[in-house]
Amino acid sequence: MKELLLGMGRLAEERLQDAIRALVERDHTLLADVVAGDSRLNDLQMAIDERCFTLIALHQPVAVDLRTIVSILKINADLERVGDLAVNIAETGQRYLAHPPVKPLVDVPRMGDLALKMLREALEAFLKGDVGRANAVLQQDDWLDELRNQVFRELLTYMLSAPRTIEPGTELILISRHLERVGDHATNIAEDVIFLVEGRDVRHGGNRTPAVERRKPRTFPA
Amino acid sequence: MKELLLGMGRLAEERLQDAIRALVERDHTLLADVVAGDSRLNDLQMAIDERCFTLIALHQPVAVDLRTIVSILKINADLERVGDLAVNIAETGQRYLAHPPVKPLVDVPRMGDLALKMLREALEAFLKGDVGRANAVLQQDDWLDELRNQVFRELLTYMLSAPRTIEPGTELILISRHLERVGDHATNIAEDVIFLVEGRDVRHGGNRTPAVERRKPRTFPA
Repeated sequence: MKELLLGMGRLAEERLQDAIRALVERDHTLLADVVAGDSRLNDLQMAIDERCFTLIALHQPVAVDLRTIVSILKINADLERVGDLAVNIAETGQRYLAHPPVKPLVDVPRMGDLALKMLREALEAFLKGDVGRANAVLQQDDWLDELRNQVFRELLTYMLSAPRTIEPGTELILISRHLERVGDHATNIAEDVIFLVEGRDVRHGGNRTPAVERRKPRTFPA
Repeated sequence: MKELLLGMGRLAEERLQDAIRALVERDHTLLADVVAGDSRLNDLQMAIDERCFTLIALHQPVAVDLRTIVSILKINADLERVGDLAVNIAETGQRYLAHPPVKPLVDVPRMGDLALKMLREALEAFLKGDVGRANAVLQQDDWLDELRNQVFRELLTYMLSAPRTIEPGTELILISRHLERVGDHATNIAEDVIFLVEGRDVRHGGNRTPAVERRKPRTFPA
């Protein structure tokens, strides 16, 4: 099961990486390839879902085991949405490439790298039950928001001074929002890890409050 | 449990409705109220999650019952995200209101009404196991995408002809994307309903393919 989920994670990361590289290198062929989607990702998602349901039905797991399986179902859905976001980025990228470049892309690929790193570390944190790493992902989400604000402010400056950059600038802003959402999915996974592990502590006689009760309402500043 | 979920849905709808009304009526007080968030929504989400886990642990449900409970967990997460999106809309709305109006808002509140309707019908479809209604929600999502494209094209026209509308125009585009995502969550719920009900048919001796295998990879055009 771990291997299936890792495979799913790797596929989602690959698509995202391709979308960003294609955008930076203005590679129309690669963009079209990402837009076409990857049926392996959907097949794998369904396989993982089915496996989870079978596991619950056969083994009637309780407590931590059950929560782990429910977490896998949730993480699986997060990874599928990351694959969808890669398609969204590639589609927006196609519209962006229809215009002359606004500027050399620096912060957008930086956002992409950070989002990919968060995704990778969140999955690793899940596989190893590593709360420290999960917390690091939550912190990186703040940096990603910072970068998104920077991208927004900089592009607005271009758009205000040169009307021909309004359309491609708007597309880049939308791409930065898609990348922000990839970070949100990595954050979801990290929060699941914290909840799972802290829940386990409670179960083993500790009396710490499960993470979920300490979570502040997560809102993603527009 | 149904009542809890309905209550959760009603709260999420209320917040969304407030955010849109405040935007249209330029009501700063109401916007600030939505931005402040609603702790009842988070409390209710946690209560529902806990109830689901307890149900599974106590009754060891299998097949349809288990899938129903897992669906409730997923729908619960969808509704919480709708509440977050209401906050996002209100925050973006605050930045929008810092500028003179670009134009009278017509299509944005129309998107809001449609998204709310989808959410309400998706929940009703779930409570009644009504596949017809769930399919209607999927169809409405196409209209919502249509409206989103219309909003985008119209605002670009304004932004290209009057630079002072670039900043507020961009904020409105972002609000339309948040509303699109509300529609995505309604769609998630509707897809869960179809899967649940079609799965039940299979279990009762039918040999129809579960909906999930017929689902095309959902990508949300940027």
